Amino acid sequence: MTEKIKIGIVGYGNLGKGVEAALPQHDDMELVAVFTRRAPESLQIHSKRAKVLHISEAERFRGKIDVMILCGGSATDLPVQTPVFAADFNLVNSFDNHAKIPEHFAAVDKVAKAHGTTAAISVGWDPGLFSLNRLLAEAVLPEGVNYTFWGRGVSQGHSDAVRRIKGVKYAVQYTIPVQEAMERVRSGENPHLSTREKHWRECYVVAEEGADLEKITQEIKTMPGYFAEYETKVNFISEEEFKRQHNQMPHGGFVIHSGRTGHGREHKQMMEFSLKLDSNPEFTASVLVAYARAVYRLNKEGQVGAKTVFDIPFAYLSKRSAAELRRALL
Amino acid sequence: MTEKIKIGIVGYGNLGKGVEAALPQHDDMELVAVFTRRAPESLQIHSKRAKVLHISEAERFRGKIDVMILCGGSATDLPVQTPVFAADFNLVNSFDNHAKIPEHFAAVDKVAKAHGTTAAISVGWDPGLFSLNRLLAEAVLPEGVNYTFWGRGVSQGHSDAVRRIKGVKYAVQYTIPVQEAMERVRSGENPHLSTREKHWRECYVVAEEGADLEKITQEIKTMPGYFAEYETKVNFISEEEFKRQHNQMPHGGFVIHSGRTGHGREHKQMMEFSLKLDSNPEFTASVLVAYARAVYRLNKEGQVGAKTVFDIPFAYLSKRSAAELRRALL
Repeated sequence: MTEKIKIGIVGYGNLGKGVEAALPQHDDMELVAVFTRRAPESLQIHSKRAKVLHISEAERFRGKIDVMILCGGSATDLPVQTPVFAADFNLVNSFDNHAKIPEHFAAVDKVAKAHGTTAAISVGWDPGLFSLNRLLAEAVLPEGVNYTFWGRGVSQGHSDAVRRIKGVKYAVQYTIPVQEAMERVRSGENPHLSTREKHWRECYVVAEEGADLEKITQEIKTMPGYFAEYETKVNFISEEEFKRQHNQMPHGGFVIHSGRTGHGREHKQMMEFSLKLDSNPEFTASVLVAYARAVYRLNKEGQVGAKTVFDIPFAYLSKRSAAELRRALL
Repeated sequence: MTEKIKIGIVGYGNLGKGVEAALPQHDDMELVAVFTRRAPESLQIHSKRAKVLHISEAERFRGKIDVMILCGGSATDLPVQTPVFAADFNLVNSFDNHAKIPEHFAAVDKVAKAHGTTAAISVGWDPGLFSLNRLLAEAVLPEGVNYTFWGRGVSQGHSDAVRRIKGVKYAVQYTIPVQEAMERVRSGENPHLSTREKHWRECYVVAEEGADLEKITQEIKTMPGYFAEYETKVNFISEEEFKRQHNQMPHGGFVIHSGRTGHGREHKQMMEFSLKLDSNPEFTASVLVAYARAVYRLNKEGQVGAKTVFDIPFAYLSKRSAAELRRALL
């Protein structure tokens, strides 16, 4: 039997837990250790054979872990951790601050090239699989328009904003695509649509006893930058219903491309990619794991430096051989 | 201005015409010549600047054409032409005989490697973009089931079979996904479905004057290997309606993957890719053109031999630079 790809997880939030849950679906990989900034003994992990260690001990696993999957946040963790880890490890992260990707790529690429490691950044579904579909559609149908819709899914930032309102005990916010906008896009009409014309927002709120529900509703609906520009619906529910119905992290979305072909551009051609996810972090984790395999192989071939999903052939994601893939899936 | 990628088209049927129509959407490419087995002077091509030449003259364009796009059929043209052309040219083809792909790959790979050319085979949407989605879904969600539905689209083979029936003047057959089967798949139920449980067939027939419509219907519905195993609907229409409504080549389909994540596999995760095409050959041609760009670049980098869509990073499909892609599309 060939040796398994040895994986380390850095950060044990929802994403790190998702990676841990995804790894047993891949019999060519094994989890070696989870690294945390918390006190290691405070963490209860699921895997029986993996170690839980403080992040400061990661360095001594150089050569013993093939790929580190960084599961921290994009705001403060990943920009700092990724270049540091790239000096010692091949890695994958899900850096999702779109505006800062070029800067992050450059920082990671420099370290990875200097140390002969391979680092796939911004892996997940957006950025990630959605980005791949945007690129593919634009390359195949250049005379076309590309639309990304997100949802139905929880927006953490918007949920937090509602929770900060006085009188709100619990709250969750779902971003939902506007069905009529999607139908207009699918019809090939190529409408101009702003983000707020493509999405509406629905809030489920548990109010403190005696809170002024009308006032909370108004505060939500008029909140600038978050809700004021959107069609927003506010639902007040009981704590019991909230805990039963809104304890999940569903998400998903659609990348729809509407192009034209023919000498007179007389033929409509529609491409669509969509995700409907019961668990956003577990799906993102599943993508990270597949790309960890790719990173491992790229590094074996001497393909070092920072990479994105755009740079990695799909064959590298599968544990099957190229010949088997051609036979079975092409 | 950088030099354009010089393209040759081999074969001027629907697919070759589609390539010709697609090329003007890419300002980094130009059509140099169309090669045909027919008498060149019998061909009226659309492009004013490209030559029309007999296929026997192709060889003298070695070094003058960067990528040949082979637009012949998979039954007899491509198996013979592709290895021959691979000795002199980088190329792309749409070889779609799934069972014979391994053999075709090996034959082309051998010639291409010996001559330092790059040849992308089996490019299009199935095999092609659908295959990519099957691979991606399996790699990301290994504990899942993958379903491919085809249609609504014209099946040439089935249309021909109906046309051979006595009393039939014109006929076209559409393969159509069974809506309830698709909904069962999307619900995450993971049903076992044979091809005939996933599709039904609809025929539009223009009968000869005085033909026995009941008899034609029976002959269609009971035809073994083509219709007997399927739910089939037969519609008789006028010649005028046939020519107005059924002169197009629409197609499309769906690749749906239903997976599970979480330690208890408690979360359903759905991935779906779909195409809705007004013109099947023009869309396939558009995919071929994007991969022609990739083949050109791979060859410049010394990546020679046979390739499939599985081996080619998406970045190679776009005319934009890697940095620009990261900034704009990731």
